[in-house]
Amino acid sequence: MKPTILMMPRLAAEAIARLKQSYTVIGPVDGDAAAAIPAEARDARVLVTYGGRRTGAELMDALPKLELIACYGSGVEGVDAAAAKARGIRLCNAADANARSVAEFAMGLMLCAMRGIGQGERFLRDGLWGKPGRDPVANTPDLAGRKIGIYGLGAIGSRIASRAAAFEMEVGYHSRSPKPDLPYRFHDSLPGLAAWADVLVVAVRASAETRNAIDDAVLNALGPAGYVVNIARGLVIDEDALCAALEQKRIAGAALDVFAAEPHVPERLRALDNVVLTPHIAASSQDAKKEQLRMLLGNLEAFFAGRPILSPVTL
Amino acid sequence: MKPTILMMPRLAAEAIARLKQSYTVIGPVDGDAAAAIPAEARDARVLVTYGGRRTGAELMDALPKLELIACYGSGVEGVDAAAAKARGIRLCNAADANARSVAEFAMGLMLCAMRGIGQGERFLRDGLWGKPGRDPVANTPDLAGRKIGIYGLGAIGSRIASRAAAFEMEVGYHSRSPKPDLPYRFHDSLPGLAAWADVLVVAVRASAETRNAIDDAVLNALGPAGYVVNIARGLVIDEDALCAALEQKRIAGAALDVFAAEPHVPERLRALDNVVLTPHIAASSQDAKKEQLRMLLGNLEAFFAGRPILSPVTL
Repeated sequence: MKPTILMMPRLAAEAIARLKQSYTVIGPVDGDAAAAIPAEARDARVLVTYGGRRTGAELMDALPKLELIACYGSGVEGVDAAAAKARGIRLCNAADANARSVAEFAMGLMLCAMRGIGQGERFLRDGLWGKPGRDPVANTPDLAGRKIGIYGLGAIGSRIASRAAAFEMEVGYHSRSPKPDLPYRFHDSLPGLAAWADVLVVAVRASAETRNAIDDAVLNALGPAGYVVNIARGLVIDEDALCAALEQKRIAGAALDVFAAEPHVPERLRALDNVVLTPHIAASSQDAKKEQLRMLLGNLEAFFAGRPILSPVTL
Repeated sequence: MKPTILMMPRLAAEAIARLKQSYTVIGPVDGDAAAAIPAEARDARVLVTYGGRRTGAELMDALPKLELIACYGSGVEGVDAAAAKARGIRLCNAADANARSVAEFAMGLMLCAMRGIGQGERFLRDGLWGKPGRDPVANTPDLAGRKIGIYGLGAIGSRIASRAAAFEMEVGYHSRSPKPDLPYRFHDSLPGLAAWADVLVVAVRASAETRNAIDDAVLNALGPAGYVVNIARGLVIDEDALCAALEQKRIAGAALDVFAAEPHVPERLRALDNVVLTPHIAASSQDAKKEQLRMLLGNLEAFFAGRPILSPVTL
């Protein structure tokens, strides 16, 4: 008999088909409340979810046999880690399965924002090119020769760093501890990194510790020629502070794939021209999806075989 | 007394100011007809122009003392080379002054097209994110692991190649002759390169030889999963053939900074969602402008001092 697993969000059709080959798949489930869990899920030893969804203590209590929470992507910020730990529930994610895809997307966002690709495209599609007195965006900063400050030099951040270096950028970073093996400049504070950088790229794991880390002080340190790129999680940036800084031109621009309350994007942000806004698609590429599914299947297979899971997250 | 130079297009204010420090600057001039040349320009030994503007025999005849045509950018395709050669007029351009800026812009266009950044941004700004039954772009190809075919491996093309390699792409190219010093795969025909590549990047100099080089046969060789990026000149692509291939999904997408009859962009192109369209801004960055101006001033200074010009173009 196939083991039962509870799939909270609706995964892609291909992922569901692959899971059903080995498991009885219950779900998807609307909402994050314990009351929404169907009765037939009560035997599930595994819950599959997205890191962005809330997985709270009450939900865990509704699944008495739960032993493993498997997050499809790399984020785990929605899981109540203390509650899971107290119940002896383990946690895994996709490790660095999407890191390469997200890193190249981050470079794309940076190029779009700094080189005016989004603004240029709106200008052209609005039929303004060639209209008297209307000049396309110009005098945009080059990437080459500029300083990129990466907040969080993990699997994604380090891949952004190597790509930025090939663009002849100077690379600096801030993280909990220096990484002396890597040839990049460590900054021991986030405002210090922002003050040094021309573009600040957020690639840190979302957590209670990093919530609203990019605040008014950091944005002011970045300054009026500076750009912010975020491919991590919306909660790492104080979104109101960012909107105000952009509106008041205290920073030059931003490129955001993630937002504080997705899929909601503040009207203030959408009203701006100096921002590039994408709907959380940095890990929606062919390879990222394939690798994330491979990691999920590998974790579940190991778990049910009683072997160590492939990518445990320490609670 | 300052020497007289004729400036055909209106250069940026900073460039004009710098030129006026050393020269009597006549222009800008509307249109490319000899009749448009003001009388006081008849003594000019130097004509400054854009490569995209037509500089024909009749115009040269209206400037009896003309000795040097200085193109502000890297292109020289508008200059009637035979007419200049017949009159002993020399030609210079900005050499590789903008190569780095254009190469990084090309990477930005490629990322936008392949990773769905343009489509994603329109989806979000149109308020579709979160609407039932509407999913953002997904399953986009990664750059990593894909094959980039570069048409023209000069100053720009080789810089695209090194950046693409850092993105873990396989790099191939087609040019007049193989470059055995470079670690990239040479293809001896353009259709052959297109058949091999997942994305074809046009970085070749525009000339009679390369006009409409990207035609129906090349696009069909590229195939339904393939992308075209053009940061060279619009005339290198058969624009009607490209529109038809995009409309009929015979290729997956395109990203274009240049067009056959700028600033005109065919309505057929603007109607498509699978294209990224920018208004010829790849060399509009701060560094490109600064370096192009430096090359122009250097060429003029050398010319008037009787020294060899810095970046002659062979006629």
